Amino acid sequence: MPIERITIIGTGLIGASIGLALYEAGFQGSITGVDTSGVEMQTALQMGAVSDIAPTSGDHRAAVMQSDLIVLAVPVMAILQWMQTIAPILRDGQLVTDTGSTKLQITEMAAKLMPGRFLPGHPMAGKESGGAALAEATLFHDTTWLFTPAEEPVSNACQTIEVEWRGWVAKFGAKTLDLAPGRHDEVCAWVSHLPQFVSTAMSALLEDTFGNDPDLRAIGGRALREMTRLGSSPFSMWRDIAHTNEAPVAATLLALEQRLQHLRENLRTPELREEFARANAFRKTH
Amino acid sequence: MPIERITIIGTGLIGASIGLALYEAGFQGSITGVDTSGVEMQTALQMGAVSDIAPTSGDHRAAVMQSDLIVLAVPVMAILQWMQTIAPILRDGQLVTDTGSTKLQITEMAAKLMPGRFLPGHPMAGKESGGAALAEATLFHDTTWLFTPAEEPVSNACQTIEVEWRGWVAKFGAKTLDLAPGRHDEVCAWVSHLPQFVSTAMSALLEDTFGNDPDLRAIGGRALREMTRLGSSPFSMWRDIAHTNEAPVAATLLALEQRLQHLRENLRTPELREEFARANAFRKTH
Repeated sequence: MPIERITIIGTGLIGASIGLALYEAGFQGSITGVDTSGVEMQTALQMGAVSDIAPTSGDHRAAVMQSDLIVLAVPVMAILQWMQTIAPILRDGQLVTDTGSTKLQITEMAAKLMPGRFLPGHPMAGKESGGAALAEATLFHDTTWLFTPAEEPVSNACQTIEVEWRGWVAKFGAKTLDLAPGRHDEVCAWVSHLPQFVSTAMSALLEDTFGNDPDLRAIGGRALREMTRLGSSPFSMWRDIAHTNEAPVAATLLALEQRLQHLRENLRTPELREEFARANAFRKTH
Repeated sequence: MPIERITIIGTGLIGASIGLALYEAGFQGSITGVDTSGVEMQTALQMGAVSDIAPTSGDHRAAVMQSDLIVLAVPVMAILQWMQTIAPILRDGQLVTDTGSTKLQITEMAAKLMPGRFLPGHPMAGKESGGAALAEATLFHDTTWLFTPAEEPVSNACQTIEVEWRGWVAKFGAKTLDLAPGRHDEVCAWVSHLPQFVSTAMSALLEDTFGNDPDLRAIGGRALREMTRLGSSPFSMWRDIAHTNEAPVAATLLALEQRLQHLRENLRTPELREEFARANAFRKTH
């Protein structure tokens, strides 16, 4: 197999789960873990998600130079920084891929910095909390792994690596789907970013309104727990999504604000029935 | 035990689950089921949620007159109608209770129509779909069952029945909590009605935006499924909640609209960090 050495940059939930999934699926080569947090790196190593770690910047450099595949599994802004760090030391036949939540800026930067050597990716998997300790080999099972390839395909030397990597992703139990990067960011604003920011806003509003009021804790049921679950998501990851996908996210938020206003003004009119009918129809097909 | 005969009016999800939970907890008496839908009544009978059924209005009347406890387990507007129907035939020593989602109008009407004979109740349990076929004896396990007693307590003749009924609810595995009816409706607007109407609005908006677009189906993950799950809730139940709790619901919707606007205008400012911090704090205590 063409992929013998892999470096995973970012051994948090996603990076460590990729390492575990690779070994679970039968990968025989080495996986070097890189993380700015020594704890995350050590945890990933102890879990068997990576075969070795690269603590210093010299070690990072050596690991990247010796790898057939480099996986960038950090938040979006950090991916953009790592791309600039590693671009000068890449040689032909190495493929870089990533797991960033937004794809337009990353795909455009890749076309400039490492044309023909980058496959933009985005596994639609995660948890409301991060960290290597929560990593699982099955995290990607029954999920969709999106790719947003640049218009120019990867170089011939990288193609066998791309084909093998897509094969590993399939072995993780994920379906793959290719989308244009702009379309990816627009659809993800609806299906992922809007739910997150609504859950954050609702949680923050309830915190301001009720604080530690025990009534709320006693009365709140499944509906409240579910609609605020994403309220525990880390700012560090979502700041980058808000920064790199601002216009599509703002458009979905504005549309929902207007929709809520419409519903509020029609709590006692027949339009409420229509709104429930549309919502019921959505749930029947999704 | 003072309760030997019970009539459950409305043998859908909640009413049939109450019947199943009563027999599971050791209730030895008769339970008569009443429902405007013959299918729901037959289903409840076949499941063993009721011991007999009362198909005609003459049967309803006889069942109510012979019961120690009457449980109104229909949507709020239907509860208000049933209260007017049965008030004239009640005698001293019979207790009426209900499971309606809003409590102020019901509690006020009870004070007029059947003072001292009504215990307003609200089990915080349910599913996004209704019907006797989904009923379970364990539906109330680990949930909260709210009561909003009128200021005037129930009559002496009803007190033993109230005490026994609260005991059955505890045997269902539910914690009980007493609240003033106005406070109940205000808190429920936040923890139950707001999540429902947000999920309905989001589902309806996605239906209008995407229709049957396969991309949405392929890409949407747990966040989308969770935030739109309540989109399948039936209009019939929520119309009554919107009608009988309009002002508190409208206030929560307006507050969330303003909060979403604030978040939208701060996607790239430090205020976004504060909003995530508040949401994280809410999730740590709820």
